[in-house]
Amino acid sequence: MTAAKGFRAAGVTAGIKASGTPDLALVVNDGPSFAAAGVFTGNRVKAAPVLWSQQVLKDGQLAAVILNSGGANACTGPEGFQDTHATAERVGAELNIGAGEVAVCSTGLIGQRLPMDLLLPGVGLAVAQLSETGGEAAAIAIKTTDTVHKTAQAGGAGWVVGGMAKGAGMLAPGLATMLVVLTTDAAVESAQLDRALRAATRTTFDRVDSDGCMSTNDTVLLLASGAAGVTPDEAEFAAAVEQVCADLALQLVADAEGASKEIRIEVVDAATEDEAVTVARTIARNNLLKCAIHGEDPNWGRVLAAIGTTDAAFDPDRLDVAINGVWVCRSGATGEDRTLVSMKDRQVVITARLNAGTAAATLWTNDLTADYVHENSAYST
Amino acid sequence: MTAAKGFRAAGVTAGIKASGTPDLALVVNDGPSFAAAGVFTGNRVKAAPVLWSQQVLKDGQLAAVILNSGGANACTGPEGFQDTHATAERVGAELNIGAGEVAVCSTGLIGQRLPMDLLLPGVGLAVAQLSETGGEAAAIAIKTTDTVHKTAQAGGAGWVVGGMAKGAGMLAPGLATMLVVLTTDAAVESAQLDRALRAATRTTFDRVDSDGCMSTNDTVLLLASGAAGVTPDEAEFAAAVEQVCADLALQLVADAEGASKEIRIEVVDAATEDEAVTVARTIARNNLLKCAIHGEDPNWGRVLAAIGTTDAAFDPDRLDVAINGVWVCRSGATGEDRTLVSMKDRQVVITARLNAGTAAATLWTNDLTADYVHENSAYST
Repeated sequence: MTAAKGFRAAGVTAGIKASGTPDLALVVNDGPSFAAAGVFTGNRVKAAPVLWSQQVLKDGQLAAVILNSGGANACTGPEGFQDTHATAERVGAELNIGAGEVAVCSTGLIGQRLPMDLLLPGVGLAVAQLSETGGEAAAIAIKTTDTVHKTAQAGGAGWVVGGMAKGAGMLAPGLATMLVVLTTDAAVESAQLDRALRAATRTTFDRVDSDGCMSTNDTVLLLASGAAGVTPDEAEFAAAVEQVCADLALQLVADAEGASKEIRIEVVDAATEDEAVTVARTIARNNLLKCAIHGEDPNWGRVLAAIGTTDAAFDPDRLDVAINGVWVCRSGATGEDRTLVSMKDRQVVITARLNAGTAAATLWTNDLTADYVHENSAYST
Repeated sequence: MTAAKGFRAAGVTAGIKASGTPDLALVVNDGPSFAAAGVFTGNRVKAAPVLWSQQVLKDGQLAAVILNSGGANACTGPEGFQDTHATAERVGAELNIGAGEVAVCSTGLIGQRLPMDLLLPGVGLAVAQLSETGGEAAAIAIKTTDTVHKTAQAGGAGWVVGGMAKGAGMLAPGLATMLVVLTTDAAVESAQLDRALRAATRTTFDRVDSDGCMSTNDTVLLLASGAAGVTPDEAEFAAAVEQVCADLALQLVADAEGASKEIRIEVVDAATEDEAVTVARTIARNNLLKCAIHGEDPNWGRVLAAIGTTDAAFDPDRLDVAINGVWVCRSGATGEDRTLVSMKDRQVVITARLNAGTAAATLWTNDLTADYVHENSAYST
């Protein structure tokens, strides 16, 4: 994120996590512009920081983002909202800005209050550590079950879009248990930031579905400092934002909890893009298929059984399915020899041809493994 | 099934399964009545035997049902449909009845032709074994990954409803990978059979959702011989059919692949029954929650995160959740102490109170375990 001029960041250990690893990140926009946009979880059960951040973003301006791991501050009632408010107030006081210019993001266990006696002093610590090279430290501090921290960047002549993300499970439509902060030093108004961000998330984060579970805390923010003094072409800027989002989205899939395979699901020749997405998502959520992929079994019957539960336009006798390029199902029945399919690689491609039109969509998911079960049953996350 | 007078059944080994265990079952109605009704999978990708049985049931009459395990005969094209037709023809020829009076059910791997050279001679073997005590042998022959065979019965003065079921995974709405044959010796017309069966499946098999996966082959048949010479009161008969369906449905849940917990999800104070079912099903399909239950972790936050993805009527700040009777979530936030929840028993009850009306629904599911992953990734089923 600090690749973009005009931003400083920090990642510190406030003590929120029992593990003693970094758990508090701060990103500050030093301007001259403070334009910002955000996209939030579609879950109707929204964490306090989501409700807060939606509110402060209404004017399209942000000067800072404070993010903690170690607790989602979701389902914590009015007290939880007050905790978020107090966090923003503390950041504002330390930076001499208004609390209404501070977005708050939290991730971790749902249903527990945050340890404010540790978090608030941590804010001071983070402010003291702010640096123009602090982007990586911030990316590390927002990890939960992530095994690696995630950053990306893209850009054009004289300007850059940078970003960080966390998320390793609960990845689903309307985003994921996922916090993303993008920064740019381009001079872009908030309305344009909003268009670029919504367009990019629609085809990147919204097309990642690790386990069909939608989080209460998903937040994607885009802040523009204008420090580069350059206003890029709208399409070029949108492409850079999409590139960074796509890069981060694939990093999320690659780090999904317990996964041993990344599965790219391509639905082609659909009647509409929406139907292609629906079919792809239904395939992505089929536990039986996800187990089969884990077992390197090209079980195309489970793909058809999944497609058959949708109301997309298709004729069951005209469905074709390829796994890693081998058309194992043609016209709804056995096609090429399934023993021709090699599934040794970590990446698996499933192509479903609906033969109902010309629309298409691609969505990413993972296999379902015993490690996923262990990771999500052994302790509360 | 042979508890009902007028029925004979058999279960034999035709050699369809590589394991050499019984794989072909036959149920014959000797009359005097041949009234019948059926409910089939809602999956649009329907196996050949489903298409065939729907067709022959149009006149509300059946004289026999032939069922095989070891192959679903789904996604097998026109040849697969011809195989089903040939099977019904062979049964008809052996019993001296028309093929149009014979329903066919298949279960097993999708996308493979059945070994007709083994199946057809098996029909003769099954006919030779038909007996008035053959119900149990038939129930054994339709097992796939089932660890036990499943039968149930109920009834009134002078009449009985009996039934058998198979199914251990892929259990989901619009039924499951599940074959069920119910018999009665009551004298009941096909229209009444149909009403009783649809009402019963709506609140039993349709309220079982083991893994969210809907099969291509689900079939529930109800055959009436009239051999008892008794016509029961319609409500009393419907109650007996529902009782047998509920008994079999719970046996399916108890035998679900790899499961270590049976989870009863009760959604109460919903605006409508449909919304209660939708919320219950969404909770039942949340992999993160299913893993938590496996780990005996009363992670109510995952219940709220699941509810939040539905469009049912509720206020996030007025949701209450109990796990095994302890109200761990009240008004959308922390309620009673979660350490009071004991989850040692195999059965777990999750109660979600929406505080949006007076409707309710109960649905059954299982936990998600490493054994489920192993069972469904180690080989094709």
